[in-house]
Amino acid sequence: MDVVVQKFGGSSVADLECMQQVMAKVKQTLQQGSKIVVILSAMAGETDRLISLAKEWSKTPRPEEMDVLLTTGEQISVSLFSMLLNDNRIKARSLLGFQIPIHTDNSFGKARILDIDHEYLRNLFKKNDVLVVAGFQGCDVSRNLTTLGRGGSDTSAVALAAALQASVCEIYTDVDGVYTTDPNVCPQARKLSRIAYDEMLEMASMGAKVLQIRSVEFAKKYNVPVHVRSTFSDEPGTFLVQEDQEMESVLVSGIAYDKDQARITLVDVFDEPGVAASVFEPMAAAGIVVDMIVQNPSREGRTDITFTVHKGDLERARRIIEKIKDNLGARGLFTDTNVNKVSVIGVGMRNHSGVAAIAFKSLQAEDINILMISTSEIKISCLIEEKYTELAVRTLHEAFGLEKEPQVTGFSE
Amino acid sequence: MDVVVQKFGGSSVADLECMQQVMAKVKQTLQQGSKIVVILSAMAGETDRLISLAKEWSKTPRPEEMDVLLTTGEQISVSLFSMLLNDNRIKARSLLGFQIPIHTDNSFGKARILDIDHEYLRNLFKKNDVLVVAGFQGCDVSRNLTTLGRGGSDTSAVALAAALQASVCEIYTDVDGVYTTDPNVCPQARKLSRIAYDEMLEMASMGAKVLQIRSVEFAKKYNVPVHVRSTFSDEPGTFLVQEDQEMESVLVSGIAYDKDQARITLVDVFDEPGVAASVFEPMAAAGIVVDMIVQNPSREGRTDITFTVHKGDLERARRIIEKIKDNLGARGLFTDTNVNKVSVIGVGMRNHSGVAAIAFKSLQAEDINILMISTSEIKISCLIEEKYTELAVRTLHEAFGLEKEPQVTGFSE
Repeated sequence: MDVVVQKFGGSSVADLECMQQVMAKVKQTLQQGSKIVVILSAMAGETDRLISLAKEWSKTPRPEEMDVLLTTGEQISVSLFSMLLNDNRIKARSLLGFQIPIHTDNSFGKARILDIDHEYLRNLFKKNDVLVVAGFQGCDVSRNLTTLGRGGSDTSAVALAAALQASVCEIYTDVDGVYTTDPNVCPQARKLSRIAYDEMLEMASMGAKVLQIRSVEFAKKYNVPVHVRSTFSDEPGTFLVQEDQEMESVLVSGIAYDKDQARITLVDVFDEPGVAASVFEPMAAAGIVVDMIVQNPSREGRTDITFTVHKGDLERARRIIEKIKDNLGARGLFTDTNVNKVSVIGVGMRNHSGVAAIAFKSLQAEDINILMISTSEIKISCLIEEKYTELAVRTLHEAFGLEKEPQVTGFSE
Repeated sequence: MDVVVQKFGGSSVADLECMQQVMAKVKQTLQQGSKIVVILSAMAGETDRLISLAKEWSKTPRPEEMDVLLTTGEQISVSLFSMLLNDNRIKARSLLGFQIPIHTDNSFGKARILDIDHEYLRNLFKKNDVLVVAGFQGCDVSRNLTTLGRGGSDTSAVALAAALQASVCEIYTDVDGVYTTDPNVCPQARKLSRIAYDEMLEMASMGAKVLQIRSVEFAKKYNVPVHVRSTFSDEPGTFLVQEDQEMESVLVSGIAYDKDQARITLVDVFDEPGVAASVFEPMAAAGIVVDMIVQNPSREGRTDITFTVHKGDLERARRIIEKIKDNLGARGLFTDTNVNKVSVIGVGMRNHSGVAAIAFKSLQAEDINILMISTSEIKISCLIEEKYTELAVRTLHEAFGLEKEPQVTGFSE
C-alpha cells in the first residue's frame, strides 16, 4: 500500500474555494492509486483569533488551556474538509491528534512528538481512502491536549510520513519551493530543485519561514523525502533529501538573513577563567539562546565580550547582565538592535575551502563592515549593520553565482 | 467530599461579562466548602455559526463529522473559563468529554451516555477545586467524538451529578425556574418551588424548553436532585424531585402547550383488523413519532383514522400515507397544521378523579372546541384550533387555581 502524506497550510484552507483546490490535489493523487493522509492547519487567521480571545479573557493564559483552545482551529478544518470529500464521493474521515493517538510530551505550546500509532491508521485505510488529520496537535499520556508550536503542522506531516513510511511527504504552501535566497530581496533568486536536510535546517533557523525547523530535523532523522510545493500550481517544488556527492560538489546553496538579532557588549571585563561562564550560564538558565559570541584579545588583563541574542530576549538579557556586571568589573554595557545576520549556506563547504574568503572579499568590495563572524561546518554567518542587509544578500548571491543552475564539477578535488 | 454540579447554558457564557457572573456563582459555592463540576455550553450563537458553516461546505454533512465540528464550541468555552478561574486564583482545569471519558453509544448527533469514569474525576479533585467540563459531548468506544443533541449539556450535568453522587445539580439558565405555565401567555403563571420528575417530563415534552427531556429521565432514574435557577439572580428556583404525598395531594401542577402539532385524517378506510398497523408501522419505520390517535366508531364497515405528528414530519408522513391509502380503501386524506395541543399536568391525577371534567367544562365555557383528546396517568391533552391556544391556557390555568400556592389538603381521600 503506497501512502502519500499531503500537508496544507492555513492559506490553503482559508475558505471553501481554497479547499476545493486542495480536493483537486487529493483527487489527482488518488487516481495514481495511493492512499492519502491529508494534514490540515487551522483556517488562515483562526489561530490568531483564538489567541486574542484568550488574551481578552486572561492576563496569563495557562499553556495547557491555550492548547485546549487552539486545537479547535484544526478540528474545524478537518471536519469541514472531510464533509466536503464525502460529498464528492471520496471515502474519508477526520482524525484528531488524540484519536490516532499522536503521543507527545507535556510541554504545552511546544510539545514534542514521542510516538504515533500507525497500526491504527493502517486499519482505517481499509475503509477510507483519505485520512484527514488535524495538524499541530497531539496528546500526552494523561489525555491532555498538546500543541507543537507555530508551524507544528509541518512536523505532524513529517512524523506521520515517517510512521507510515510514506513514499513522499508533500508540504503544500503559498510559495512554490525553497529559493537560493529571499526573492523579495534578490530578484535573481532561483528555486532549488533539491536541498539537503542540513542546508534546510540552516535556512529555516535563519528565518526562511517555509518549514518549521523541527519538521526538518525529523525528516533528516527518519530520512523522509519531503517535497515543498505550491497549492496553486502543478509545478514541482523543492525536494528535501539526504545530501549526496552531487550536492557536495556545489560550493554554496543559499544565502539567508536574520533580522531578529540584537548585540550586547560588555566592555573591559576581567580576563579571568570563569568570566564567560558567569555571563552565559544565567542566560541559559533563563532560556535565552545566545547565538554568536566573540571575546577580544586581552589588553592589560581586561577584555570585551560581545554576543547576540534574539531581539525579543534583549530586555531580559540586559537585566541579567546588569545584575552581574559589577562582579565582572565591566566598565560599560552596550546594546545594539541595528544589526542583522547574513549567512552563506552549503554542504559543499565541508569539502571546499575558500568560501569564507570569497564572502568577506565581496562584502568588503561594497564597503560593508563585518561586525562579528561565526562559522559552522556548512555555514558562514556575518553580523552587519542593518541598513546593508539587502545589499549584502544580493552581493553574496552574485559572488557565488547562485542565479545560475550549478555546474556539477565531478568531484575534481 | 461534597460535590456540587453547576451547569451554565449558552446565554450564561455569551461573553466575558457573563462569565464573570458565572465565576461569582462558583466562588460563592466554593466558600461553602464544596468541590464543583461546572458544565458549560458553547457561547451563545456559536453552535448555530458552526452549523451554517457545515451547510455552506456540504449538502449532506456526515453526522460523525458534524460532531467533530460542533464539539469545538464547548471546547472553546471550557478552556477560556478555566483560564479565567486560574487568573483569579481558583484551581481549575478544563475537561473534554473524551478526557473523562464520558462514554456514549455511536448515535452521532443524538448519542446516549453509557458510563462516566467518576474515579478519574475524583482524583482530579485532589489538585483542583473546580473541574470545568464541556457539556453536550462524549466519545464512543472507538474514540469517535459524539454529541448528545440540542440541550445535551443538561444531560451531561445530570449524568455527572449521578456519577459523582453530587448533593445537587444546579441548572443555571436565563429563566428563574419552572412555571405553572408560560408567563408570556398567562401573566398569572407562578414559579413552582418543586416539581415531580414525571411532571417535568410531561412539561418538557410539551415544549417547555427549560430542560432537555433526556436529562429529566436521567434525573428520575438516578434520583438526582436538580435545581433549575437563574444565572442572574440569587433567588432559589425550582427543585425537581421524586413525587411525594404532598405533591400528590395537589390536583394539577401546570398547563403546557405545544405549537408543533399537525393533524392527519384518513377518511372512510376499511374497518378491518390490521388497518391501524398498516398506517402506523411505516411511520415508526421512518422514525416519525405519532402522538395522538383517534379512530371513530365504524359506520357501514368503514371508519376514520385521525392522528397527529410533529409539524416538521408532516410532509414525510403524508408521502407515506399517499402510498398506502388506496390499499386501505381511504376515500380522502386531510391534513391540518392550524391545530395546537394544550395539556393539564399533575401527579395528583393519579389519586383524584374529575380533573378531565373540570378541564373540558372550562374550555366549553369559552366555546373552545376540542378536536382530539388523549390522556395519560398524569396528563390530559386536548387538540384545539390554533387560534384558541392562549385563551385555552389561561382558562385552564384559572380553572385549576394555579395562580395561588396550593393548599395542602392533607390526604383527605
